[in-house]
Amino acid sequence: MNRTVEVDLAKRSYRVEVQPGLLESVGRFVQSLPEVSSVAVVADSRVAELYGLSLQDALAQVDAPASMIPFPAGEENKTLSTCQGLFDKLFALRPPVDRSSLIVTLGGGVTGDIGGFLAATALRGIRFLQCPTTLLAAVDASTGGKTGVDHEAGKNLIGAFHQPVGVLIDPRCLRTLCPEELRSGLAECVKHAVIRSQDLLRFLEDRKADLLACNEEAMTELIAANVAIKAGVVAADETEQSLRAILNYGHTFGHAIEAEVGFGNMTHGQAVALGMVGANRVATDRGMLSSSTADRVESVLAGLGLATRTEAPDPDVIWDRMLHDKKTRKGRVKLVLPRGIGDVAICDDLTRSEVRAALEYLSGE
Amino acid sequence: MNRTVEVDLAKRSYRVEVQPGLLESVGRFVQSLPEVSSVAVVADSRVAELYGLSLQDALAQVDAPASMIPFPAGEENKTLSTCQGLFDKLFALRPPVDRSSLIVTLGGGVTGDIGGFLAATALRGIRFLQCPTTLLAAVDASTGGKTGVDHEAGKNLIGAFHQPVGVLIDPRCLRTLCPEELRSGLAECVKHAVIRSQDLLRFLEDRKADLLACNEEAMTELIAANVAIKAGVVAADETEQSLRAILNYGHTFGHAIEAEVGFGNMTHGQAVALGMVGANRVATDRGMLSSSTADRVESVLAGLGLATRTEAPDPDVIWDRMLHDKKTRKGRVKLVLPRGIGDVAICDDLTRSEVRAALEYLSGE
Repeated sequence: MNRTVEVDLAKRSYRVEVQPGLLESVGRFVQSLPEVSSVAVVADSRVAELYGLSLQDALAQVDAPASMIPFPAGEENKTLSTCQGLFDKLFALRPPVDRSSLIVTLGGGVTGDIGGFLAATALRGIRFLQCPTTLLAAVDASTGGKTGVDHEAGKNLIGAFHQPVGVLIDPRCLRTLCPEELRSGLAECVKHAVIRSQDLLRFLEDRKADLLACNEEAMTELIAANVAIKAGVVAADETEQSLRAILNYGHTFGHAIEAEVGFGNMTHGQAVALGMVGANRVATDRGMLSSSTADRVESVLAGLGLATRTEAPDPDVIWDRMLHDKKTRKGRVKLVLPRGIGDVAICDDLTRSEVRAALEYLSGE
Repeated sequence: MNRTVEVDLAKRSYRVEVQPGLLESVGRFVQSLPEVSSVAVVADSRVAELYGLSLQDALAQVDAPASMIPFPAGEENKTLSTCQGLFDKLFALRPPVDRSSLIVTLGGGVTGDIGGFLAATALRGIRFLQCPTTLLAAVDASTGGKTGVDHEAGKNLIGAFHQPVGVLIDPRCLRTLCPEELRSGLAECVKHAVIRSQDLLRFLEDRKADLLACNEEAMTELIAANVAIKAGVVAADETEQSLRAILNYGHTFGHAIEAEVGFGNMTHGQAVALGMVGANRVATDRGMLSSSTADRVESVLAGLGLATRTEAPDPDVIWDRMLHDKKTRKGRVKLVLPRGIGDVAICDDLTRSEVRAALEYLSGE
């Protein structure tokens, strides 16, 4: 069973392949690329331990030296200072890294973002291959070319658009995820369904048991369906000038809640799930979205084990965080609002009182 | 007197303006850009002291807040760690920097490179305007979109291609340059002449006294002529896949000599001047270039106050440095060799013994 999705970006086009056991075939893919002089695998310490040896085995058949450059696991290490450490290792490799070298990112979203940023900026840009090992990275971050690191002042404030030369997804890697990580990825799948696909929403309703059990066939279908949605949006708007912003559905509230609760105390997907419930509330209050559709989305989230209510964060603090989001321009807070499943609008006129009402709803008041 | 050069890069096209007193008009230019929410000026401590107030005066007419974010002067500070400090300042600005913000780089090559890299990676890329204040930056680095910082392992190893929205050059800024800095810029002018223009070489021969005296009219002509050459090459090959490599004439030997002597002990331009003499020697040894043309280039360099001989660096060390240059692929050292004025070839078969012979020549043996 395998699925392939094309990401159509003219000269920067590439394929996303989804197949159980694919990690063993990474060598074949690298061998098919033009002129690879050396390979550097970026992985965090935990993933390097779990899958590092398998990947190095797979790369042994490549006609170029491969090295592992690990970094300490954890979102708190997605910093410029970790990049400095990775550059030190990268530029100490022998033979020296050159413009024909390839970076392979093996891991979750943090690894893809930081390894992709390394590729974007080493020698002013070299190629990289994404091998996501979490559901969240597989269905979302690994496709689309957003790379970067966090800054004290906010997430992903430092980065670049840099497309990978390919994305290889092995659903078997997901078996080592803890339930929270799995659910975190499923939340982004609900996001894709609401912004783009009634079929995907039904799939999430019908197959929830298989998905929570990490069934290989269901996971392969799920990942391919999500990547297809993401790829379509990215192909239409690579650098987020317009349409791509719909992918931020659930993220305006989500980012602010995640930051307020403290990164690490809530998964990204859980925050986005709450963010979608908050955005839906704004949409129903505006009369854009029916209550029954909003309820249906909440049921899907709950069915996948995601919380749809949270302890009340201070609305003023959340509002202030939204004002400082990097997507906010001239004090106008952007928000993606659904009109129905597969149909969303981008607004930039969110008000403080709407935020207050949505948060009251989220806290079950 | 003013000169304008178009850099033709489709959607990323921009203009380079050269005019005495232009620094006073930076506000007018910024005001003409679409939707600028805030301006951050990146300058080193020395330039901030010399020109910071004039620029802030010029920006006072802009309908957006402008702030200065300085960093310590010196090539040794062109590092990721200086970027971290600049990001800290940038993200602490109020109102917060957003995707409509503009970075203005005011200074020499280091400032343009580091400020441009900041713009390339802040919020995954915002606009920037180059205001070079040295001849070297005016005739070379400010046009073309190469941005980045150094790493212990080599110069410019970390960076990105990111085009400015404009380049404003005020030749009056050059009056504060010390003679070494002026000559350093003139060396890159000789480079442009040899790779692309007999007219420019004659101009450098005929007007050398005016140029060394920083005559405004001569400087304006010189800068515009050089920018036009650079712009033509960049427009044909933005990301250095092929033609742009001719701009590295003099730089294979030059970089290695500069690194060996120790950055700061020799200007970049002086190293490039020696590098051109070395490359010319390889070319005459191969029978590609006539001795009379090589002699003429040496005379032009000497006439502009540049040394054409140096104490013998160890050929094995120089060769090893060349092998580790970021342009070297699979151990093949690239070298740009002139066949005549305005006509060069790119080779990647430089040998250790050719390097030895060229260095013997350079050391006057």
